Amino acid sequence: MAMQLYELAGSDPNRRFSPYCWRVRMALAHKGLTAEAVPWRFTEKDKIAFSGQGLVPVLVDGGKSVFDSAAIADYLEATYPDRPSLFGGPAGRAEQSFIANWTVAVVHAGIARLIVADLLEILDAKDRDYFRKSREARFGMTLEEFQRGREERVVGFRESLAPLRLTLEKQAYLGGAAPNYADYTVFGAFMWARGVSPFKLLADGDPVAAWRGRLLDAFDGIAAKATGFPV
Amino acid sequence: MAMQLYELAGSDPNRRFSPYCWRVRMALAHKGLTAEAVPWRFTEKDKIAFSGQGLVPVLVDGGKSVFDSAAIADYLEATYPDRPSLFGGPAGRAEQSFIANWTVAVVHAGIARLIVADLLEILDAKDRDYFRKSREARFGMTLEEFQRGREERVVGFRESLAPLRLTLEKQAYLGGAAPNYADYTVFGAFMWARGVSPFKLLADGDPVAAWRGRLLDAFDGIAAKATGFPV
Repeated sequence: MAMQLYELAGSDPNRRFSPYCWRVRMALAHKGLTAEAVPWRFTEKDKIAFSGQGLVPVLVDGGKSVFDSAAIADYLEATYPDRPSLFGGPAGRAEQSFIANWTVAVVHAGIARLIVADLLEILDAKDRDYFRKSREARFGMTLEEFQRGREERVVGFRESLAPLRLTLEKQAYLGGAAPNYADYTVFGAFMWARGVSPFKLLADGDPVAAWRGRLLDAFDGIAAKATGFPV
Repeated sequence: MAMQLYELAGSDPNRRFSPYCWRVRMALAHKGLTAEAVPWRFTEKDKIAFSGQGLVPVLVDGGKSVFDSAAIADYLEATYPDRPSLFGGPAGRAEQSFIANWTVAVVHAGIARLIVADLLEILDAKDRDYFRKSREARFGMTLEEFQRGREERVVGFRESLAPLRLTLEKQAYLGGAAPNYADYTVFGAFMWARGVSPFKLLADGDPVAAWRGRLLDAFDGIAAKATGFPV
């Protein structure tokens, strides 16, 4: 039975913009696995109630369902050990945790303030109230206030990527000569932005932009083919 | 023939405060190797001229000399492959590069502004003019100006460690259940601070402080036994 992956989608079901779903989508491709995409919206909690919680990604593989991107990556690595490794062993897995925490604390936090009001525009109509209310409660301000000043703020965001940039000046991928789950973890953040906003995150000539381009084209361009804004 | 490691020292030759030398010192211990310590001061360029450059660490192993902490770690991993691995394979090595770049861009940069004027006090007398002049030229201000406001700035420094803290809340070391070179890379920064300044970097109860404590005690406490301020 083919796998299924529940992925956050916009009003266009081919617009996938969850950074965590992109981690899994790339991890599946890395392992040469395919999963039927099931577009899901924020307010469709009932559709994934079978997983015992209310967030995507949810992977269904045979009779088993797994949620949470890190748990899914671990599941794929354990279940399909003969396919290319996502982590390259225990040390790669452990260090990837640091990179994942950096991604959330620095990259996601930075990108949120550059694109979050734009995100509203691409949402399915039924998700808009939910998204605005839940995020404005979290941020303590309106989405528009949260995003205000992004033309100036993007400078600091680009600076905050220094550890990534310095690394990519010396090696093609975080995983080395070829990408691994560490790359997909960070790349997911850029796919989130690409899916929801025309705002230009990276300067031309930035090694981070070149790396993003390589990952957009990887695996027959599964990322490049997804609905999104030009980067 | 025993190995020798040229290490930056203060007026007290047992006060070692180069973060890069500490990476190597811990890497040697990790591999169960010993190296005779050769205390070295900034102005003793002639003493390491044989290495073809003017910075420590320099490792001498038999007739061979290797400089630059990353090159030394790679040398140790390649030359002593039967001893415990520093990287845990190519993915661990590649991802460690990211952690090293984060260490320099975030941890070193943050710590510098918290301790650099104190550093002057522990230097060998002959190094003080060199250090003040070279660093003030680099910073574009006096050491005292560079360090000013540290009581307020330490709050932001602690926040900048979020990716490290989040990781150490879930696993004992960056390398997983046991430390590897990724840990020594970040730990070196804290050994730099410990060697030169009584300023309190970390709040009590911070998982980062607990991790630092475990590494201070590792390998029979080679780090804890070095001259330094209480942390």
